[in-house]
Amino acid sequence: MNYGVALFPSKPLQDLANSYRMRYDPHYTLIPPHVTLKEPFELEEQELPSVVKRVREIAKGVDPFPLEVYKVDTFYPVSNTLFFKIREHSALTELYEQLHTSPFKRNEKYSFVPHLTIGQNLSYDELSDNLGRLKMKQIQHEEIVDRIQLLYQLDNGSWTVYETFKLGKEE
Amino acid sequence: MNYGVALFPSKPLQDLANSYRMRYDPHYTLIPPHVTLKEPFELEEQELPSVVKRVREIAKGVDPFPLEVYKVDTFYPVSNTLFFKIREHSALTELYEQLHTSPFKRNEKYSFVPHLTIGQNLSYDELSDNLGRLKMKQIQHEEIVDRIQLLYQLDNGSWTVYETFKLGKEE
Repeated sequence: MNYGVALFPSKPLQDLANSYRMRYDPHYTLIPPHVTLKEPFELEEQELPSVVKRVREIAKGVDPFPLEVYKVDTFYPVSNTLFFKIREHSALTELYEQLHTSPFKRNEKYSFVPHLTIGQNLSYDELSDNLGRLKMKQIQHEEIVDRIQLLYQLDNGSWTVYETFKLGKEE
Repeated sequence: MNYGVALFPSKPLQDLANSYRMRYDPHYTLIPPHVTLKEPFELEEQELPSVVKRVREIAKGVDPFPLEVYKVDTFYPVSNTLFFKIREHSALTELYEQLHTSPFKRNEKYSFVPHLTIGQNLSYDELSDNLGRLKMKQIQHEEIVDRIQLLYQLDNGSWTVYETFKLGKEE
């Protein structure tokens, strides 16, 4: 079964992201707008409890932090993806690092670029037609993130939340 | 903002439900297959913490329980909805009752019929064409439910999980 770890921003930021995803992201209906903290990884059912425990520890070890979105950018030419760029923050980096440290596999393929995807699998023409205009857009939003989520993937490609983990120590 | 409380069954039951929802449920892409415990209700942001606290208490007060699905049925003529009928269970009824007891509003409109929707807003012809065949289907599935979820609705009608609540006392 495929699992992943993500954070869902607030409704206003999700609504804003969806206004783009609707047109540019074929995953629009598969999962709400999110910041991926750990790409899909395979897990046997018997491994789940120890992974849940580890994600809970990681979440407890990182305090709630400000998430700041400040522009539209692309991974082109690596991929034809459009995203809201997220300001680097030590807490966000720490979450990502911990989720890619033993017992989890490292991500050898990419280094962490905090982002919220608003378009993907675009043709070169779609990307270049829109990129200039979108890069000019004034995007400025800041909010506090206080939770992350572990999700699993259904056969139709959509994602269901398995568990929420609050950041920082329990009240 | 609209909130709701639901339980998501296991992946196998969700995949089975989606094989029907794909054809019969226009909400297919808005939310994964679920059992509604509390229909959408409006909440101001400042009311959220006390509601979260109350849902957490309710979840703690009910132990994990078996969820049994045993046939396809319909709410016709009240509504043209198709669903997997869920065997009544005191724990499930208790969750529903608590979520409709002060500070929450009672549901004056319907009494609780535990179900997992697989089709809705069907025309009379669609419903009657398929109902006989679906009612004959051998549906038999049982699993343990150990968590419920509080969700909120985005502007596009889709739902994001806000928080997971484990049933019973914390380990």
